Amino acid sequence: MPPRGVQKERIRRHAARLFAENGYRGTGVQDLSDAVGLGRGTLYHHIGSKERLLFEIITLHVVDVVADARAVLDLDLTAEEKIRRLSRIVMTTVAAHLPEWTVFFRDIDALSGLLRREALAVRADFEDVWVEVLRQGVRDGEFRDLDPVVVKGLLGMHNYSYVWIAPSGRLSPEEIADVFCDLLLGGIRRPPG
Amino acid sequence: MPPRGVQKERIRRHAARLFAENGYRGTGVQDLSDAVGLGRGTLYHHIGSKERLLFEIITLHVVDVVADARAVLDLDLTAEEKIRRLSRIVMTTVAAHLPEWTVFFRDIDALSGLLRREALAVRADFEDVWVEVLRQGVRDGEFRDLDPVVVKGLLGMHNYSYVWIAPSGRLSPEEIADVFCDLLLGGIRRPPG
Repeated sequence: MPPRGVQKERIRRHAARLFAENGYRGTGVQDLSDAVGLGRGTLYHHIGSKERLLFEIITLHVVDVVADARAVLDLDLTAEEKIRRLSRIVMTTVAAHLPEWTVFFRDIDALSGLLRREALAVRADFEDVWVEVLRQGVRDGEFRDLDPVVVKGLLGMHNYSYVWIAPSGRLSPEEIADVFCDLLLGGIRRPPG
Repeated sequence: MPPRGVQKERIRRHAARLFAENGYRGTGVQDLSDAVGLGRGTLYHHIGSKERLLFEIITLHVVDVVADARAVLDLDLTAEEKIRRLSRIVMTTVAAHLPEWTVFFRDIDALSGLLRREALAVRADFEDVWVEVLRQGVRDGEFRDLDPVVVKGLLGMHNYSYVWIAPSGRLSPEEIADVFCDLLLGGIRRPPG
């Protein structure tokens, strides 16, 4: 029998794929039980509840990205360099964990109560990273004055990629990030002079 | 009894709100029947099927936007002016029909077969509008050479707004469109000289 952590990671991976394909609400515990080859009792023993499983799928990779992004924010780099790194972090992780990100962006509203509040807090942490780097850029004179809604545009450019990104597409996730950063930095950089 | 068209529009509006709140798969025909105050038989008489209803909610407003956008493309305007108008069209309609757009972006994968193919075709028409205006801008020398993935960034900036836009928010949909266009045009305009 595989160790508990490995087993749980395997369940989460199968569940993310099923939720991404058929929706959280369109996936029954029996579907999941069939996919992972465990009885319902054993499955519940591992996951606690279907909603708890959804919560873990939604938050785990975002928490990782926020941690990586925070590490970038702490480096001694220009805001432009930080944005380029953040963009690559986001695009590579969306491409590498597409089912999980699909579920994150599409099924977060299926959570309720405390789990919902916690997941929304993680999503807010993710947004704060972008808010902070834009603020640095304006403060340091690299970027022009920006309306706060700009961060929603940046988030949209990156987050919506779960709809169209193909892990073996024409461009690598890093190349896509670079194209997006050329565009958005061109639009927010302070004009010379 | 209201005329058939009015009744159907009323059903679609209630259904869009319920689907946006609880997901397509999380909304039963009985929920819908309760919300509109019609028996299941009468309801089915109007909608045909729940999936057909989803299809109509998903496509009707997008078809309208594509028609409005095509009219803009046909005008004798610069690519930049067209992008500014397209952006305003998209942001105002997302804000005005938020439940329908939420369902469009989130539940399109719940459609199957022919309805799914038709809905994806409508989504592709919507993308083509942006592709064409970018192509005009490059052809006319207004925009720099752009990688085709740029259109995904533009779509993302606009489409992801269903997650955060508030119909009575700080900025009007038109003002948001203008901020986004200042950003993206700054990033795609050919530098002078």
